[in-house]
Amino acid sequence: MSNGGGAPSSTTHLLDFLEEPIPGVGTYDDFHTIDWVREKCKDRERHRKINSKKKESAWEFTKSLYDAWSGWLVVTLTGLASGALAGLIDIAADWLNDLKEGVCLSAMWFNHEQCCWTSNETTFAERDKCPQWKSWAELILGQAEGPGSYIMNYFMYIYWALSFAFLAVCLVKVFAPYACGSGIPEIKTILSGFIIRGYLGKWTLLIKTITLVLAVASGLSLGKEGPLVHVACCCGNIFSYLFPKYSKNEAKKREVLSAASAAGVSVAFGAPIGGVLFSLEEVSYYFPLKTLWRSFFAALVAAFVLRSINPFGNSRLVLFYVEYHTPWYLFELIPFILLGVFGGLWGAFFIRANIAWCRRRKSTRFGKYPVLEVIFVAAITAVVAFPNPYTRQNTSELIKELFTDCGPLESSQLCQYRSQMNGSKAFTDNPNRPAGPGVYAAMWQLCLALIFKIIMTIFTFGLKVPSGLFIPSMAIGAIAGRIVGIAVEQLAYYHHDWFLFREWCEVGADCITPGLYAMVGAAACLGGVTRMTVSLVVIVFELTGGLEYIVPLMAAVMTSKWVGDAFGRSGIYEAHIRLNGYPFLDAKEEFTHVTLAREVMRPRPSDPPLAVLTQDDLTVEELQSTINETSYNGFPVIVSKESQRLVGFALRRDINIAIENARRKQEGILLTSRVYFTQHAPTLPADSPRPLKLRSILDMSPFTVTDHTPMEIVVDIFRKMGLRQCLVTHNGNVLGIITKKNILEHLEELKQHKEPLVTSPTPLHM
Amino acid sequence: MSNGGGAPSSTTHLLDFLEEPIPGVGTYDDFHTIDWVREKCKDRERHRKINSKKKESAWEFTKSLYDAWSGWLVVTLTGLASGALAGLIDIAADWLNDLKEGVCLSAMWFNHEQCCWTSNETTFAERDKCPQWKSWAELILGQAEGPGSYIMNYFMYIYWALSFAFLAVCLVKVFAPYACGSGIPEIKTILSGFIIRGYLGKWTLLIKTITLVLAVASGLSLGKEGPLVHVACCCGNIFSYLFPKYSKNEAKKREVLSAASAAGVSVAFGAPIGGVLFSLEEVSYYFPLKTLWRSFFAALVAAFVLRSINPFGNSRLVLFYVEYHTPWYLFELIPFILLGVFGGLWGAFFIRANIAWCRRRKSTRFGKYPVLEVIFVAAITAVVAFPNPYTRQNTSELIKELFTDCGPLESSQLCQYRSQMNGSKAFTDNPNRPAGPGVYAAMWQLCLALIFKIIMTIFTFGLKVPSGLFIPSMAIGAIAGRIVGIAVEQLAYYHHDWFLFREWCEVGADCITPGLYAMVGAAACLGGVTRMTVSLVVIVFELTGGLEYIVPLMAAVMTSKWVGDAFGRSGIYEAHIRLNGYPFLDAKEEFTHVTLAREVMRPRPSDPPLAVLTQDDLTVEELQSTINETSYNGFPVIVSKESQRLVGFALRRDINIAIENARRKQEGILLTSRVYFTQHAPTLPADSPRPLKLRSILDMSPFTVTDHTPMEIVVDIFRKMGLRQCLVTHNGNVLGIITKKNILEHLEELKQHKEPLVTSPTPLHM
Repeated sequence: MSNGGGAPSSTTHLLDFLEEPIPGVGTYDDFHTIDWVREKCKDRERHRKINSKKKESAWEFTKSLYDAWSGWLVVTLTGLASGALAGLIDIAADWLNDLKEGVCLSAMWFNHEQCCWTSNETTFAERDKCPQWKSWAELILGQAEGPGSYIMNYFMYIYWALSFAFLAVCLVKVFAPYACGSGIPEIKTILSGFIIRGYLGKWTLLIKTITLVLAVASGLSLGKEGPLVHVACCCGNIFSYLFPKYSKNEAKKREVLSAASAAGVSVAFGAPIGGVLFSLEEVSYYFPLKTLWRSFFAALVAAFVLRSINPFGNSRLVLFYVEYHTPWYLFELIPFILLGVFGGLWGAFFIRANIAWCRRRKSTRFGKYPVLEVIFVAAITAVVAFPNPYTRQNTSELIKELFTDCGPLESSQLCQYRSQMNGSKAFTDNPNRPAGPGVYAAMWQLCLALIFKIIMTIFTFGLKVPSGLFIPSMAIGAIAGRIVGIAVEQLAYYHHDWFLFREWCEVGADCITPGLYAMVGAAACLGGVTRMTVSLVVIVFELTGGLEYIVPLMAAVMTSKWVGDAFGRSGIYEAHIRLNGYPFLDAKEEFTHVTLAREVMRPRPSDPPLAVLTQDDLTVEELQSTINETSYNGFPVIVSKESQRLVGFALRRDINIAIENARRKQEGILLTSRVYFTQHAPTLPADSPRPLKLRSILDMSPFTVTDHTPMEIVVDIFRKMGLRQCLVTHNGNVLGIITKKNILEHLEELKQHKEPLVTSPTPLHM
Repeated sequence: MSNGGGAPSSTTHLLDFLEEPIPGVGTYDDFHTIDWVREKCKDRERHRKINSKKKESAWEFTKSLYDAWSGWLVVTLTGLASGALAGLIDIAADWLNDLKEGVCLSAMWFNHEQCCWTSNETTFAERDKCPQWKSWAELILGQAEGPGSYIMNYFMYIYWALSFAFLAVCLVKVFAPYACGSGIPEIKTILSGFIIRGYLGKWTLLIKTITLVLAVASGLSLGKEGPLVHVACCCGNIFSYLFPKYSKNEAKKREVLSAASAAGVSVAFGAPIGGVLFSLEEVSYYFPLKTLWRSFFAALVAAFVLRSINPFGNSRLVLFYVEYHTPWYLFELIPFILLGVFGGLWGAFFIRANIAWCRRRKSTRFGKYPVLEVIFVAAITAVVAFPNPYTRQNTSELIKELFTDCGPLESSQLCQYRSQMNGSKAFTDNPNRPAGPGVYAAMWQLCLALIFKIIMTIFTFGLKVPSGLFIPSMAIGAIAGRIVGIAVEQLAYYHHDWFLFREWCEVGADCITPGLYAMVGAAACLGGVTRMTVSLVVIVFELTGGLEYIVPLMAAVMTSKWVGDAFGRSGIYEAHIRLNGYPFLDAKEEFTHVTLAREVMRPRPSDPPLAVLTQDDLTVEELQSTINETSYNGFPVIVSKESQRLVGFALRRDINIAIENARRKQEGILLTSRVYFTQHAPTLPADSPRPLKLRSILDMSPFTVTDHTPMEIVVDIFRKMGLRQCLVTHNGNVLGIITKKNILEHLEELKQHKEPLVTSPTPLHM
């Protein structure tokens, strides 16, 4: 069953338990795929050993207790670290971000808001003005107003943005190239069983944390939410080294990583349940119920740590937590669904444009200058962003402003409805009034911001700095949603006698909530880009805290997924996985073709015959030449050259290690030594050299399918059992082998060549 | 791959697509296990057909659209029906329940609360007193007070309770025996791939709905939450018959049932997300992401329907929705964990006692009189329950009262703290006062109620009426929790200078919330009985609506699970599944033994040899005699008697149907006809009768494992792929067969005989 050394480790210890295990057998090379079945067998074996020993002494019992608890310990530690790091990143990014605009004289380490909080001279209406906070123009030129100081501020803004971006890309390039991007495509691949050494290491963690802060502060169109998942996974990986149960077993380690990614989303959005569902729906591959429970725990721990750090001073985990109080009406589903369509279109467009751009970056000379590219993009972003208040501010703050409904205390430009035209600052309680000039101005600025964000995000995602997609996508959706919301609101005001509005929207009544539209739009755009469903709805539900608004959210997210799927079924993460050529077998995509195993297996009819080993009549020399002449990772072992009946499967790496080991330790192993995989040595002439026994590395239970097996079943077995390879037999004889790579190649071929024999499921068939 | 007719249906249609499929091949008998792989192949085949046809005409395109949408339609209908039925059951049960005490003169169909709502003469303080509502004593004797009327009310209470119970058990016995119990063990079994015809049919639905109302109203110690899941699944099953995609495919139907069970929990507890997690964690077996999304949708639809019916008049989905406003303190984790210990002990005790009682009922004569038993239990329940106000009232109302914190408007006896000793009705805002005599009296009554509930629930669960466990378990936990909560509160009041309390609990401050203790206790007891984890925490979280209280809940639920697991690892549902002998392979239990496939396979060394069919030299007569002499459900097909190499697998049912069909349709099929499974007919003498070709029913891709495969891998394959049987080979030759039943028997043997070779995982290892 392709469990390489797994079955041997649990079966041969009955047969030849006097033999010591060969060191190194059962480990993996970098950029190789793990064998889930073998790993799980190894873990059960380890567990059995500990259990059988635990009655021997109090010390062994303590060790077994420690082993039993280590799962909880490691997720607790991961949760604590993720929460603490998220808090740290939030605070540092906030401070650095405000540094672009000015500095707090009373205490350098305060950001703008904290600076004015501590000041006594601040009134509530002008929260963000206080003498302690000096803009750069005030500090350098000594004047706060006028064109000169505007230019000075503009210049300093660009200066800081470029410095942060430069520092970030240099750190990434020099110390930890794996720290760039969002990390989610790679984490998905790792969780599906691939090995990328160092991707979740301590250097990556350190550099990613620092450069994430710099990248966010540089004002680039990116977010910190995706990279936070990477940061949490690094924590999970590092802590798993404290516990042999996890450090020595790749499958168990992935359980910790699943929990860590839940913790990452939990702190990114303040949504523990949403985080668990995200881990389940989006990133995890193998997700047993035990992991569900531990993920939930890790997510909760992380959320509580973050809450006690309280980085935003609002007792909430995220900046843009909101509560709405007005209900929504059935008619509003139409604009919500339109927002869903927009989200789907944006998602499809973004994926295509971004992938095309990234492909160009990979394939042309252009990709050789990552530092220049980052500085160039950062410069354009800063130059264009500064004049528009909606692009100048932090994207999270923008989202918060767009989500928030106009209340009596809101001083935003978006809430300047006409009743306050008399110049007084008495904002009305009721926003359903004709829009004032402030709102119109805001609409224009928002439209420009929308175009700006759309263009810049395409070029930003994929730069060699840590960059998340959640926040820019949400910002685009929120802008579009708010615009639609205000439009509907004004429509309802000016045409309150239309049959659509007459029923439920009286003049002056507060019937439309533009903030809700912004939230729905944000969810739709995020859904279009990532194609998340339940987890997205739950995350946004946890942001609002009201069951009431789930239906609009669901309608928009469903529409956006369907519209997006019509243009291409994979989300941005799957698209990047494919772009990078990772061996990832998507569990969501259904295999719908009618090919059989024999059409996919290697060798193909035109290839040389399958490289096999016979069980008892090879010499060491023959074995080595077979191995060296081919590049396969493993070889079927058969009864004899005449009878191709299958005995087992041996891995190249294991054979090499075993021969090496035998040469070092056993005397008399020559090139002419007979190699045997059987239980008893074959009868040999008296003068022949000592034979080499390799049964301990033989997997006597390889997974097999017959040549007539439909590929849909084979793909299902690979996905569910986590195989690396599978042997193909016909009437008991070995015919060939199918590896994960063969399946991925086959899928790619089918996609490119002749889609229409059997089309992939309709987009409606989500 | 054990996909019986599945691989043929997708492979042979290439080879002999002129042959018509034989009707009946690929269906199942009652009480048989389905083959998931075959069903999934059938569905993909159907899907491919529809897709290839859809470009032919507008009508075909419409049909393909209908097919694509039918999944959403069926879950929408299921959600609507579940919500509506839940509302109906809530209202009817409420009304019938109040009928035990009296009747509304102004409108017979009003329950007590509604009756007094509509009355103008009701004051807020005496909400439940109004002239329109007459107790039976008032109506019959004409007097409301005095011992005579008490006895009259007592008598009428017992009379109605017995009538309801009698009616319920008779209806169940006569019309739908499957309507009894909670239904969750059977639904788990059905979802794991077992066929129980009629269990989810329209009669069961109708009778279960009616008798559920009667059973709840009879005052028996049972709840309606579990049976609501059964009701929702019946709806799902019935609606799935409208869509051939679901009615003709047992695997697809189970996707609908998974969604339906989510909808059931969603309406039972007003917890859509919790419902989905319940479906995922507790009942479902095969849960693809598509189902997750649809389950969520069904749960939401059901919740919204129920909310618009608004059965409790509180705009909430459940009676016992509460909101707390005071935080909890770290020290309180100690009593919370103690409640968890109590919950675990109660769960373990309940499972043992209930299973012992149910086994006695099954094995002795005593089980032959279900009607008498129900009446007996109902009589005892009514007689003992009436004198104690906490047992007399509806259990849901009791839970609500226990959960609710003492506020200024609470008139409950539990809130009679000493400051109102002066006789005025001015309840204080602050419950942290010394307990008054009301509280002491309530404590006594609660203790008695606790003992009563514990005893009665053991004897009630398993009666031949619809009976859920959630509510009684929660009630027991809530009572215990409230008692502990009041104890801690009084401790804090009298010893506020202890170091434990000094820090955070000032005199007169509102620092302990006894209602929260009740809720934690309820969750712990429910967790102890069902061993649910995440879904339980999320359900209770949705009841309270505050992230704040997740940590206490989690601490208690985790403790209760660990304590419970120490006494036996299976929850009540698994225990009942085992008691009833259903073929259910628990996905949660890890297989930890070291046996190999050859030790489990049949035939055993002492058995007669394996019954096999050869591929081309059997006659019809020989084939029939082989089939008739054995009782196996399927037979391996081998190359020839000399070479046991495996060709494929044929199912008994399919062979019988095919022979029957051939006799009817094909001429010249005699007993001496040669049967062949090969692609081309063997060369036969000229005078021999026409041969019978059976290749179309041959599964050419059976799942195989080698004899050396560890059983842990075999069990894993069975679970993940949903197999019915698997062939065992050695060097390509067939040795034997392993069925799901063999595995279950093997597990049972290992459990009984020699646990300690390798012990099952420690309870800590959840």
